[in-house]
Amino acid sequence: MDEFALIRRLTERRTRTGAALPPLAVGIGDDAAVADWPSGSQIVMSCDTMVQEVHFKRVTMKDSDVGYKAMASNISDIAAMGAIPRYALLSLSAPKNVPVSRLDNLYEGLYECAEQFGVTVAGGDTTSTPGEIVLAVTIIGEIEQGRALVRSSARPGDAVFVTGYPGCSAAGLHYLLGRQQAADSIGELTQPYRFLVQAHQRPQPQVKAARMLLQSGFAGALNDVSDGVASEAAEIAEASGVGLLLEEGRLPVHPDLAEYARLASREPLDWILGGGEDYQLLGTVRPEGVNELAALFSRHGIPLAIVGEVSERFTGVRLLRRSGAIEPVDKRGYNHFDN
Amino acid sequence: MDEFALIRRLTERRTRTGAALPPLAVGIGDDAAVADWPSGSQIVMSCDTMVQEVHFKRVTMKDSDVGYKAMASNISDIAAMGAIPRYALLSLSAPKNVPVSRLDNLYEGLYECAEQFGVTVAGGDTTSTPGEIVLAVTIIGEIEQGRALVRSSARPGDAVFVTGYPGCSAAGLHYLLGRQQAADSIGELTQPYRFLVQAHQRPQPQVKAARMLLQSGFAGALNDVSDGVASEAAEIAEASGVGLLLEEGRLPVHPDLAEYARLASREPLDWILGGGEDYQLLGTVRPEGVNELAALFSRHGIPLAIVGEVSERFTGVRLLRRSGAIEPVDKRGYNHFDN
Repeated sequence: MDEFALIRRLTERRTRTGAALPPLAVGIGDDAAVADWPSGSQIVMSCDTMVQEVHFKRVTMKDSDVGYKAMASNISDIAAMGAIPRYALLSLSAPKNVPVSRLDNLYEGLYECAEQFGVTVAGGDTTSTPGEIVLAVTIIGEIEQGRALVRSSARPGDAVFVTGYPGCSAAGLHYLLGRQQAADSIGELTQPYRFLVQAHQRPQPQVKAARMLLQSGFAGALNDVSDGVASEAAEIAEASGVGLLLEEGRLPVHPDLAEYARLASREPLDWILGGGEDYQLLGTVRPEGVNELAALFSRHGIPLAIVGEVSERFTGVRLLRRSGAIEPVDKRGYNHFDN
Repeated sequence: MDEFALIRRLTERRTRTGAALPPLAVGIGDDAAVADWPSGSQIVMSCDTMVQEVHFKRVTMKDSDVGYKAMASNISDIAAMGAIPRYALLSLSAPKNVPVSRLDNLYEGLYECAEQFGVTVAGGDTTSTPGEIVLAVTIIGEIEQGRALVRSSARPGDAVFVTGYPGCSAAGLHYLLGRQQAADSIGELTQPYRFLVQAHQRPQPQVKAARMLLQSGFAGALNDVSDGVASEAAEIAEASGVGLLLEEGRLPVHPDLAEYARLASREPLDWILGGGEDYQLLGTVRPEGVNELAALFSRHGIPLAIVGEVSERFTGVRLLRRSGAIEPVDKRGYNHFDN
């Protein structure tokens, strides 16, 4: 199959899904795609790459999961700015001997996630490579003029929040790597494994939560949790020139994470602080907005936890342990005393 | 060097070049970049990938050339829509053992080309790979509402034109592959090699020519010559449901191409029709605009040749030979009788 035929195969059938996505003015197949753009808004752009054996292995991810997650991680970067994801462009490099069915499955996952979040695939390039599969996704979003939720806008007194249950993806990965069977043989897992594996393979970018934050007017800084809570908190602290104090007792621990940690003789906290790829949101909220935001998220059924506060008395990230001790935490989630 | 430090190294120093590019509202370093967007325009998007050993080898391209050409080929896709290139996002996957100097040189070339064409690099992702270097560039441009120059708008009676001298890039590649020395040992080549190697390593996307075409109001269909004149002509013919008759005697042959073809005992026509990566423009122009457009391009010193016409009497691409014979030409540039 030549490249043109392959691109056609990988993209054309997607027009039959019936999803009500905004149409392109000029679609895939010309030199470039053309789309209308609302006036009065800003364009938000990001790209993120997944490489086989580096970001995923065949024991941890089915090909459809790889596609889904590649799209999800990019959408999450747009969500982390408070923006609305609109368009995606795909660059797929694969060895010549990869079965077309693998590429079909990758694209299946890419399009499933794109449709779920209203993203139009506006371009794709498929090349061969002597190496492993490399999947680069570029995502383009839209945001109201001057409203982007950046890392640098945390202020002393802000509350620190997190959505969902960070750490579950890393625990799911731990389970999958220990298991060492092909990911597509997993079938019906029981709990606690199912939730954790799902969190790793099919993370849900928090576009709705981010938009609610932006529209509330109470948002401070915002990051998505791609590299663990400690790393994201450190980025906000550094960009904002403040300190973030996290409280161990307030970090949300999902019951399945707690159960699996017990079975694996591990600390949930290590996965929460040092894990990654959860694509939840970590950010700060102005103190006067905490109650209103908590009530709003509760009404929408989105888990939101206040996990600490922003301080001007130190820089970096510190952890208030259950014991009352306060310890510095580095970007990788290690605290400097215990490890 | 960790990924963050590498991205900082590869992107931060570019802010010191002093080029007057439009500033980002939020720059590289947050989850995504944010840029202002003019109202009343459409967004144009494309991506294109270069893989070592597939799209380039170390005997054919220096790393800075690879970067330059990756950016140029993407800008060319935007030019081929008549649009103005604005932003680029880079995804670079490289083996862990690649010297940082190679990545520096890649980025040097990427930024050199971006600056030359007023493109702001708005994002980058750097990953390791067990395979070869994979460089994916996504490019985002702007065009006046509804004015994109698509493949499907050729009409019977249109003249077919080409800018510059297609075939030179393929001839340069032929020379480099026959030479089999590292590309960075080329130094000062003499003619006819220098022009051809330059055409291969540092192609010049025709943004200015495309904008002149669009603004003239006489443009029909437009493609960039990424896959040879025959392939681009075939795409226009197919998308527009017409035939393109090219005249052998009117296809422009650069003197250095003619000279090298003589030395290599090859036909320039094979490289012109079947070569690629020239990133010149091939398109159609309404008959009433031919003279005006030719005069306009002449005034601006941009080579423009009328090489044929659009017909409703057949589909696909045909070649009027110097002998007077008319032969069908396939997408790869082979004519069906001679080969």
